[in-house]
Amino acid sequence: MFKTLALPVALLGLAASGAAHADEGQWQPHQLPQLKAELKRVGITIPAEKLSDLSKHPMSAIVSTGGCSASFVSPEGLVVTNHHCAYSAIQRNSTAEKNYIVNGFLAKTRAEELPGGPTLQIYVTDKVENVTDRVLKGLPSSMTGRAFNEAVAGRIKQLVAECETDKSYRCSVPAFHRGLEYYRIRQMRVRDVRLVYAPADMIGNYGGDIDNFEWPRHTGDFAFLRAYVGKDGRPADPSPDNVPYKSKDFLVVSAEGLKQGDPILLAGYPGRTSRYKLPSEIRFARDVNFPARAAEITADLGVIAQATNGNEANAVRYADVVKSANNVLKKTQGLMDGFARKDIASIKDVQDAEFRAWLAKNQSAAPTAMLSDLDKLIAADMALTNEELGYSIATTSALLKSAQTLYRLSLERQKPDAERETGYQERDISFIKARLQRLEQSFVGSVDEARFVAALQRYAKLPPAMRAKGIEPMLPAVASVPALYQQTKLGDTATRLAWMDKSPAAFEQSTDPFIQLAVKMYGEALALENRRKDIDGNLDRTIPQYMGAVIAWKKSQGKPVYPDANSTLRVTFGTVGPYSPRDGISKGPFTTVEGILEKHTGKDPFDAPAKLREAIQAKRYGAFKDPVLGTVPVDFLSSADTTGGNSGSAVMNKNGELVGLNFDSTYESVTKDWYFDSAITRAIHVDIRYMLWVMKEVDRADNVLAEMKIKYKK
Amino acid sequence: MFKTLALPVALLGLAASGAAHADEGQWQPHQLPQLKAELKRVGITIPAEKLSDLSKHPMSAIVSTGGCSASFVSPEGLVVTNHHCAYSAIQRNSTAEKNYIVNGFLAKTRAEELPGGPTLQIYVTDKVENVTDRVLKGLPSSMTGRAFNEAVAGRIKQLVAECETDKSYRCSVPAFHRGLEYYRIRQMRVRDVRLVYAPADMIGNYGGDIDNFEWPRHTGDFAFLRAYVGKDGRPADPSPDNVPYKSKDFLVVSAEGLKQGDPILLAGYPGRTSRYKLPSEIRFARDVNFPARAAEITADLGVIAQATNGNEANAVRYADVVKSANNVLKKTQGLMDGFARKDIASIKDVQDAEFRAWLAKNQSAAPTAMLSDLDKLIAADMALTNEELGYSIATTSALLKSAQTLYRLSLERQKPDAERETGYQERDISFIKARLQRLEQSFVGSVDEARFVAALQRYAKLPPAMRAKGIEPMLPAVASVPALYQQTKLGDTATRLAWMDKSPAAFEQSTDPFIQLAVKMYGEALALENRRKDIDGNLDRTIPQYMGAVIAWKKSQGKPVYPDANSTLRVTFGTVGPYSPRDGISKGPFTTVEGILEKHTGKDPFDAPAKLREAIQAKRYGAFKDPVLGTVPVDFLSSADTTGGNSGSAVMNKNGELVGLNFDSTYESVTKDWYFDSAITRAIHVDIRYMLWVMKEVDRADNVLAEMKIKYKK
Repeated sequence: MFKTLALPVALLGLAASGAAHADEGQWQPHQLPQLKAELKRVGITIPAEKLSDLSKHPMSAIVSTGGCSASFVSPEGLVVTNHHCAYSAIQRNSTAEKNYIVNGFLAKTRAEELPGGPTLQIYVTDKVENVTDRVLKGLPSSMTGRAFNEAVAGRIKQLVAECETDKSYRCSVPAFHRGLEYYRIRQMRVRDVRLVYAPADMIGNYGGDIDNFEWPRHTGDFAFLRAYVGKDGRPADPSPDNVPYKSKDFLVVSAEGLKQGDPILLAGYPGRTSRYKLPSEIRFARDVNFPARAAEITADLGVIAQATNGNEANAVRYADVVKSANNVLKKTQGLMDGFARKDIASIKDVQDAEFRAWLAKNQSAAPTAMLSDLDKLIAADMALTNEELGYSIATTSALLKSAQTLYRLSLERQKPDAERETGYQERDISFIKARLQRLEQSFVGSVDEARFVAALQRYAKLPPAMRAKGIEPMLPAVASVPALYQQTKLGDTATRLAWMDKSPAAFEQSTDPFIQLAVKMYGEALALENRRKDIDGNLDRTIPQYMGAVIAWKKSQGKPVYPDANSTLRVTFGTVGPYSPRDGISKGPFTTVEGILEKHTGKDPFDAPAKLREAIQAKRYGAFKDPVLGTVPVDFLSSADTTGGNSGSAVMNKNGELVGLNFDSTYESVTKDWYFDSAITRAIHVDIRYMLWVMKEVDRADNVLAEMKIKYKK
Repeated sequence: MFKTLALPVALLGLAASGAAHADEGQWQPHQLPQLKAELKRVGITIPAEKLSDLSKHPMSAIVSTGGCSASFVSPEGLVVTNHHCAYSAIQRNSTAEKNYIVNGFLAKTRAEELPGGPTLQIYVTDKVENVTDRVLKGLPSSMTGRAFNEAVAGRIKQLVAECETDKSYRCSVPAFHRGLEYYRIRQMRVRDVRLVYAPADMIGNYGGDIDNFEWPRHTGDFAFLRAYVGKDGRPADPSPDNVPYKSKDFLVVSAEGLKQGDPILLAGYPGRTSRYKLPSEIRFARDVNFPARAAEITADLGVIAQATNGNEANAVRYADVVKSANNVLKKTQGLMDGFARKDIASIKDVQDAEFRAWLAKNQSAAPTAMLSDLDKLIAADMALTNEELGYSIATTSALLKSAQTLYRLSLERQKPDAERETGYQERDISFIKARLQRLEQSFVGSVDEARFVAALQRYAKLPPAMRAKGIEPMLPAVASVPALYQQTKLGDTATRLAWMDKSPAAFEQSTDPFIQLAVKMYGEALALENRRKDIDGNLDRTIPQYMGAVIAWKKSQGKPVYPDANSTLRVTFGTVGPYSPRDGISKGPFTTVEGILEKHTGKDPFDAPAKLREAIQAKRYGAFKDPVLGTVPVDFLSSADTTGGNSGSAVMNKNGELVGLNFDSTYESVTKDWYFDSAITRAIHVDIRYMLWVMKEVDRADNVLAEMKIKYKK
């Protein structure tokens, strides 16, 4: 199958010229010097040592928005990322009169730049330290389960606390290789981020949910933000007095773009992958968890659609929720389709068998009981995962979740900061507040009520294994739900936020029905959480032994091992190239502006703006015409290894110049989170030439263009 | 649109290396010397003069089977054509015990070769003469309508009769350029044709109706026949005493195959195209005739499905009828889709306007009233076409049609042979007999009855314009149809054939209800036919004036004009290349054997034989591995200009060596019968390497391979 799918690239006579290299690996920057030969093979000219240094160009220009990746493109804090990453900032500034979603937005001056809102931040990673010893060393080997989990959490909190003494920084200590290693990541957190420029939705999100995860793609998924800091140059709360951040580095833009076969370098913050799962974990996901989650999302989307039907304002409020849910659903379905198309579990069985054979010969690589321990732990993990899914269905109500967060916060606040649960420390308060506040953008009482009622009804029909038994007796009867929504005041944002400062006693005495429900459920919810900690603690004891052995095994074959994605800064590289979804068909690597007209129907999501269509029809290609294509490219494919979180990642040429933005991957690639199939995995990027062309010929964003350093073709 | 669709070839970086040339034109061989420059551009090395000579290689090896194209591939009368062209021969020899459809068939010796049946013939075109003057000269200009039509028919009959004095030949005088020219075609007719070798249906028809007209394609649509003649070397009725025909020429096979960008030459017998229709004719087809025909076929297929449901034997009898109807339906739907996708009528409007502008300046090119006369005639033609469709629906019964043929034959036989209606002369008797006999393979009384009943019910609901008013009062009441089928004896083949020799009086006195119905309807059916002759006669007077002017117009631009296809020998040429159905996607030009496994489901039509799958899995590619693909190619695409009737056409390399067989075209190409869109039109060919590989590695047809002259790679 591997070979079959790899063939058609050759079919098109491209084998010699530019078949995409298979470039698995989301590498930690410090690993890159191990990959010199690979980088050279692909054609990257920046020295690996330079790429591994976060203080040096180009890595020092790579940033995160919290959920997406981005990069500085001017010395004045100008940041480019995806349109969908800036969407909430566009949405929150839009009104019926000034609809920036529909019409796009361009600040012609700094003064016109709009606030990005409380959840949009810019994080600049400036320090990464291996703190494995400080997390694990000295913990008694007898310590397991929840005790181990909490001991590790306690040490991590300490490491974070000492790092965050300077309040300009946000620190974290994520696990790598499933807990084999821990790194402390320090990021400067810019809290005043403004919207500079976004094209119209029917450019930035052309094709919408229909084209999501698909190729051919014609989406101009880009937008510009600006980081603002206090006059002292340090991060500050949003304020009119703030000034643009003087980014110490920024990416130069190459208007020359790329052609098929060219190398690319991609840097960003991939969210989560599962490349090192055991075959049993894959089968559980494939056969149990994904189907259940897909069914749940589908049902919930149906309820939202029905509850907002005929009320445009309510539909708009839920647009973002629906968009996110559809994205998760399509991804989950893509995973299920991919697992059906390709028996990844069996491929992993073969690898697993090879590994076990190697381990039998190299028994010093892991404790004897490791594999059998692991099997038992994974079985327990699966059982709890089922129960957790049931719990999440039973607590679908946004108001219940808010009440639970608020009550938990009041309880945690009773403890010294260092002892509080992760996520409820002082450092987390502003995030909790932002989330509680932001809810008002995507909440309607009647819709939340309908979702809760329907979810409780679905919960009642779940198989026994998915019932959260401790919680079950506390769930409200369906008939009583309308009264909850009539009597609660939590739907009001000011009321909701006011609860952030109240004592546990105030909650316990409250007559608000959602507060009451949260108080009532607390003990059992905590018990569920503690069971998770117990299992995680045991897994965290055993899986690193497994990963250590796997790495030793790979090392014995001369292969470096990258850790699963965990929202930390990574580098991947690859080649611009097409792929073959089926024998006899080739997709990509480029689409062109003419394809926009081909798809244009005049109806959302294929309603290209008139000014865009006119520019295409008039062939006003300007400096952005590709010499091979004879027109302006829109999107392109590369073999780079990406996942969610890589949205907005800078796509750079061999010299580290910006040539595009990552924003999606093809449907056939979705299973890459579990298994990287080099023949069909392709990431989708918006071509810099389309971005610049839209800015110049469609939106006349000359001020933004003037701010960037753009290298044109000679 | 044209440019848009042409782009993606370039998108794949192929522009420089091998974008398919657009090669519109189904040329009469004698036209080829006018196209020297084009042939050279494409890369054909055979001199145009040689290609235009039917007595010389390679044209002397190109033959027809009556409905398909084929070619000699050995000096012993071995003929290669498509599996679907040999299907009736395979079917008629198959039994439950010896199922050659399912298992394929291979004669290891001449003695094992099986009779092809009465409808399978081999025609070798050996003489083509321009007889325009003998058809048209001296006919008074006042002569129009039916009188003109019959006068032309009479002269043609005379031309045919003098040509067929040697009974080994079959002659015809088809019109070219819609009646501007007439050529007399002389073909040797081999009447004893035997089945030599056919692969299993799940090779020869892999993908079945699902893949029909589609790409990617993995069909091994080939079979081998042998022409037999009497010991005197002249065509003879089938007999065990016959001997293989010593074909004076045959094609050498090149096992080297082709690669992307290579030129191809294709020779065969394209059936019918409508490239020179006026915009009004296109709109009538698009808006009225095609939708009505598609609806009719869909309804009839539904009736057949219901009537044969649960009876495997009956379903098998109708398999060929269903297959043909599905093919016509898919083609008709493809035409409708194509017309919806691309406004061909408007494109023709533009061309028509240019032509009219030219004509206004060059009034001597046609009589003044020509265009307005044409408009009136076309309107009358459309009205009658509607009525004819109604008539054909009302006479859906196979037994009624047989009775009508038989009664007409008895009446025509009363006249001297030269005066009989075309199709009822002595020269036609054997064909009538073959058709009446062959009916037994695809007829079941209860199914025919159900089709007739349903068709009469549909007829009753047709709009008034489609009613055949003269016929209508004579149609049987639906309630009376079962009695017709109970009482008729025409379902019996011997009885049916016996009627071929009876007198008109015998028909008029018959009590067989279908004979009675045919006699009763005769007068009105003849009246309808005469109205057709009247309109055709007038069209035949005026359209040649139009075509003459069109040719003069094209000539003024330096463009040669090929006539519409009319089942006569034509040559087309092109280039092996992919096409882009949409921006960002490329299809073809090759598929590979691995794609067979990719499609294999184990269920018809994707049930690849085990021995085929084993050979692929074992990578037993032998000498047939393509150096670029790294495996055995199956099918490929070229830009050659083909249509129905080109099935089985030899696909030759620049030297005239056989490298494949034409068998289909892509769905996007279907509208080419009306308008050749060079960007998306691609013909589908089975690669000679797949044929040879199946013969060698799967079916061990070593004796057939040994008989051919095969050039292997050096």
